[in-house]
Parts: sequence; structure tokens; C-alpha cells
Amino acid sequence: MNVPGFKAGAVKAGIRGKDRLDLGMIYSEVPAAAAGVFTTNRVKAAPVLLDMERLKEGVARAVVVNSGVANACTGPEGMEAARKISALAAAHLNISDKQVLVSSTGVIGEELDISLFEKAMPSLVAGLSQEGLPEVAQAMMTTDTVPKIRSRTLELGGHKVTLTGLAKGSGMIMPNMATMLGFVVTDAVVSRQVLQTILERGVGSSFNSITVDGDTSTNDSVLALANFMATNPLIDDVDTSDGRLFQENFSALLLDLALDIIRDGEGATKLITVQVRGAANGEEADLAARTVANSSLFKTACFGEDPNWGRIIAALGRSGARFDPDQISIDFDDAPVLVRGKISDPAWEERAAKVLRKAAFVLGIDLHVGSAEKKIYTCDLSLDYVKINADYRT
Amino acid sequence: MNVPGFKAGAVKAGIRGKDRLDLGMIYSEVPAAAAGVFTTNRVKAAPVLLDMERLKEGVARAVVVNSGVANACTGPEGMEAARKISALAAAHLNISDKQVLVSSTGVIGEELDISLFEKAMPSLVAGLSQEGLPEVAQAMMTTDTVPKIRSRTLELGGHKVTLTGLAKGSGMIMPNMATMLGFVVTDAVVSRQVLQTILERGVGSSFNSITVDGDTSTNDSVLALANFMATNPLIDDVDTSDGRLFQENFSALLLDLALDIIRDGEGATKLITVQVRGAANGEEADLAARTVANSSLFKTACFGEDPNWGRIIAALGRSGARFDPDQISIDFDDAPVLVRGKISDPAWEERAAKVLRKAAFVLGIDLHVGSAEKKIYTCDLSLDYVKINADYRT
Repeated sequence: MNVPGFKAGAVKAGIRGKDRLDLGMIYSEVPAAAAGVFTTNRVKAAPVLLDMERLKEGVARAVVVNSGVANACTGPEGMEAARKISALAAAHLNISDKQVLVSSTGVIGEELDISLFEKAMPSLVAGLSQEGLPEVAQAMMTTDTVPKIRSRTLELGGHKVTLTGLAKGSGMIMPNMATMLGFVVTDAVVSRQVLQTILERGVGSSFNSITVDGDTSTNDSVLALANFMATNPLIDDVDTSDGRLFQENFSALLLDLALDIIRDGEGATKLITVQVRGAANGEEADLAARTVANSSLFKTACFGEDPNWGRIIAALGRSGARFDPDQISIDFDDAPVLVRGKISDPAWEERAAKVLRKAAFVLGIDLHVGSAEKKIYTCDLSLDYVKINADYRT
Repeated sequence: MNVPGFKAGAVKAGIRGKDRLDLGMIYSEVPAAAAGVFTTNRVKAAPVLLDMERLKEGVARAVVVNSGVANACTGPEGMEAARKISALAAAHLNISDKQVLVSSTGVIGEELDISLFEKAMPSLVAGLSQEGLPEVAQAMMTTDTVPKIRSRTLELGGHKVTLTGLAKGSGMIMPNMATMLGFVVTDAVVSRQVLQTILERGVGSSFNSITVDGDTSTNDSVLALANFMATNPLIDDVDTSDGRLFQENFSALLLDLALDIIRDGEGATKLITVQVRGAANGEEADLAARTVANSSLFKTACFGEDPNWGRIIAALGRSGARFDPDQISIDFDDAPVLVRGKISDPAWEERAAKVLRKAAFVLGIDLHVGSAEKKIYTCDLSLDYVKINADYRT
């Protein structure tokens, strides 16, 4: 999990209840190349706006993250609070506040109590250690039931390179971008422009391909920091063998984290991959897969382990993707249900129901129109999803 | 409820279980002007396709409706079944099958058993009576818990005119068009073109403005039959005083039925009117209202009686409607929450929570950008919605 040159840690600051880690920090001993992708929601939280501004420089040394309060819809006071938090961290780290990024997750519309940050900052900074990343993953949690942290190593030009990613996210998840929050730290030597490109490409097939409930958050952010400690030959072009290898590992890490989020989606009992093939073009493949993945009726049927393919066709029919209902093929894992519009065989239901009892399965849809494909990852809609969200604030 | 010249009735045909009304018929003693609007889902059920074809003539004498099986995604066999049902009815009524419309609602993908219709048709036709419309409303029900029937009378040129409407719908409800099924019968003298116009206008602000779960059905249909028995002066232009009065009453009837559907939405405990004002244009007003009304997070918060306005803003932010979050106003009934981006006063939460405990309330949103408005009617997302839909087929 540890990445050379990065320290991290978390403390109980009292922002989210009394006795839990809710304020974390990631710190690079040297200036790091920094990249980010953020929510496309028109309403962006104060920390998102601040980070977008600061990433223009492309260099960062620290990320401060809190859970409990999202600092979204908080107006100029919220921006002021985000700036103060970064200044507080900078002062204790003895670095420029321009190199501090901030992230928040939690209730929208509440204001942060800066005095809690003032009190906690000295012990947060004092407690930073090479082993601290898992603590940060814990401090980011809201309705998450498990912390999400993944790590990979690879070799670039004979040098070992480490990539570690942290994520949180459980509800309000149809990132566009993101998972609410994801951080990737690496010791790779990679130019800031390439890091941004690699991050954007990786996010497309991971965080931007998952949905718990179709709601896009105001705080979605994925940040990447590369501090060059691995001393590998500089990657300044994605389309080189090193660039491609790094992209491959980076994307795989993001996908691992994204799937961790879906497995831990609010109330989720199943990880469902909706894989559309044969669409007329990429946009229609995305529309088709996303519409099915967000259909409350499809998701409740999955919770009920009912292979109700009529709901899948109904969702496809309103998705905007072109297809002929008499030509569509549908299967669950390797169990065919419809083959070119016809029920595959009398045993289809029994076979499909068996697949739906699994903790993870693939819904395969072939529109038989063109050759475009898209995978969207989602979870079922369960009684617990409603319970969790009816009671979230109270 | 009765409309001069119309007879109706229903029988237990065994299509949906053993002992419930599941096959209904509406019959006009004379040829009636007929109009219809249908689902925009790319996948249209066989009865929808048949009715669309038959309405080109604009004259009908009977509607046959069954619940239990939707006759959707049933290919050429489904079309054949729909035709057979109309022919069966026509034979027993001694009319042309071109003047028989058919509607089905229930499970998608299952085939209708025509022998059940053959067996039931004689008693269905024999049992037709002037008082039979409420029985048809019952026979149309699937997960509906109450039949939906509404009636109005008005005077046109000194003649009393009656309008009676029937509807069903409980899940897979974001009609575009419709409520799954709605029928309006009237004795008004109105040209077929005007009836179609009046129906389309009325549907826009009623059935096309409701959503239970954002899913658009394959079977949505609203049919209107006018049999001229009222002998009022012919309405052959909507923009006359009679035309407007008729439109007004027709629209009000459809809205009553649409709201009946929302009140009886699967698992619904609340009727919520999402009223967006001050949007840049009509399309953005619709997007904003519809996105909030379909947000699972907003709907679960309503079920939990939690005035979580952050979720409203987050949904608005991803809706595509333009607005400045610092200028937005939100209220629940007459309780202001946000006034131009600021919390109205310290007592907002208590006041808003009191409104949310009501069985029906209005969420008012002013985007303060332009002057376009839109109302969308929806219900909360409750534990029962998930229970009903996890178990629908099994």
C-alpha cells in the first residue's frame, strides 16, 4: 500500500459524529505532478471549485479530505472555508497553500466548522506516516461499510513503480465524473499532461461507468499525484510502451476501486455488469447500458432474483438506442434468455434464476445493429437502499 | 359515471389468476369518433400497434381490455393474438373488427391464451350494461390497489355532456405517453380531429406529467371515444367557446385520473407536486422538474419525511437546466427553505418537516433565470415499492 515519498494519516476531528476518523491527509515529501477530474454537475462544491483552480498549476504536495459535511451549496462562505482549510494545512506542513488540494463529502448545505479543523490540524500533521493511507480511506467513508484501497506495482525501465488508490462512495453514485472521491498516488515519473490524460482515460471505463442510483454528486473528484520518486524514465507520451503499460495499470486500479464502490453501494446485494454489444454507435451503447442499469424496475427484479427480461426490453425501448425488438439477444452470464427475439428454450427461466442468485453476474445484451459496446456496472435496488436513504440525516 | 349510449362490463376470464375481473369491454351503441395517444417507447406492445393502425380510420365502437398479460415482446404471434381478440369481440357484437380497439397490461413477454378469450367472450358481451364502467376499471388493475374512475358533466349549447374516464397504472410509470391505460368515453358531438387535439393537449399536462419510477411502459395508451349522443352543436374547432370549455373539462378529467395513479403508485405514501418556475425555457423547466421527481435520493428522503434540500439541488445540477445555485429558491408548500440561495431562517427545517409529514405537498423551485414553468407529479420511493417489484412475477 505504501508509496515511496508519500505520508498519510487521519484523525477524529468531530466533523462526523464524535468517535470516528473523519479528517485525513495525504502528503508528498516533494512536489508532485497533479491531475484531477471532477463532477459535471452544474452545482459544484466549494472544494471542487478550489481544486479545479489549483490544478491549473499542475503541482501539489498535499490533499486534505473530510467526511460528514460536503461543503456544497454553501456560497462564498463555503469557498472561504475551503481556502482556510488549505491554508491551515499549508502552515502546519510549511508549504505553499497553492499546493494543497481539499476534498469534502457528506451532507450538502451544511457549513463546515473551521474551529474543528484548527484544533485537529496539529495532530493530523504530527501523525503522518508512510503507513497512513488506509487510515485516510477510513476517514473518507460516509455510508460506506468498508474502506476502499487498492495497490499495484509495475516495472518501468527497470524501476519498480507503485500505484495506490483510495476511494469512497456508496450513494449519489452515477459519477460523471466520479465516485464522490478517489485519490491515486504514485511514485512514477510522468509528466503532468500525461498524468491528466491517463487519469481521464482510466476514469471513462471505471468511475464514469458505474451507477448506484443515477444521482450525480456535487463533490465527485478523482485526484492523482505522481511524485517521481521511482526514478523511472520520464513518461511524456502515453503512446509509448511505458505509457501504455502505465495506463493499463492505472486503469485497472481505477476499475478495481470503482467495482469496490458498487459492491459497497447503498444496500447492494449484487454486483451487476450490464454489457451492451452490437449498438449502432458508442453513444447509443452507453445510453442503452445506462438506462437498464438505472431502471428501478430492473434493479428491484435483480434484488428479487427474478429474470424479468420484459423490464430490460422496456428500459432499452425508452433509452433512445436503436434496435429491433424481434432481433435482440439477452443472456445472464452464459445462460441465454432471448436469442434474436425468441425465448432460447423452455429451461431458460430456471437457468437464468440460478445466475441471479449469484453475488455477481453479467447481463449481456446484443442489439444486433452495429458493433459498438459498453459496460456499465451497477447494483440491485434493495430494501436497505430505501432504509438508508430515508434516514440519512436523521 | 354512466355515459348515454355506452355499455360496459367485465368478467373473470382466468388471464390473471383464478378469481378476479381481468377482461373488460366498453361498447358504444353507435359508431363513435375515436382518438388515441400511445407510448413513445421504441418497443410497442401488439395491442398498441394494432390500435395505432385502426385509429387511422378514426371510428370505433368497442374497446376490449385485459390485465395479467401485456402482450408485449410477443412478435408476430402477439399481433395475431391481438387481431383474434378483436375479431372475437366483433363477431359477438355483430360489428366490424376494424372498429374494435384492444388494450393489454401485465407481464411483458408472456403470450396470451386465446382460448380463455374464446370462453369468456359470450358472457362478457351478454353482461354489458349502462352501469358497467366501474367493472372495467376493476378489470384493468394490476398492482393498482384501487380502481380509478372519474366523471364530469358540462353543458354545451344547452345540451348536457358527460365525460367519464378510466385509468390504471401503478408501476413502470413515466408515461410518454400514458398511464399504461386510460379510456375516456363521452357523448359529446365532436369531430375526430378535434377529439385527437383535445386528447393530446390534455395528456401533456396530466398523464405525461406524472412519474412513479421513471420507467416508460411498452403498453401506455389513452383512448377517447365520443359517440355524439349528447346532440350538442358539433365541436369542429378547439378555439371556440364550446371547444375551450370541452378542452378544459377533458383536461381536468385526465389530470384527476393521473393524480389518482400517483396516489396509488407502487408503495406510494405521498403525492408530491414538483413545481419548477423561472426556468430559461419550457424544455429546461421539464428537465429540472422531471429529474428531481425521478431522483431516488429525493424520493427516499420524502418517504423518510426529511427536507433534504441538498439532494434537490444535486438533482437540479445534473438535470441540464441552467441556473445559478446561489440564486435558487426552494419551498415546501408555503414553508420557504432557500430564498435566493440562502437558508430562509433558523426555523426552516421544523416547518419543512411538518409539510413533509402531509399526504400531499408541493415542492416549489424557482430557478430565477427566465419565466418558464412545469409541474411534474410524483410519489415517494418506499420500502413497499421495492417489496412489490422484487416479487412481481413470483
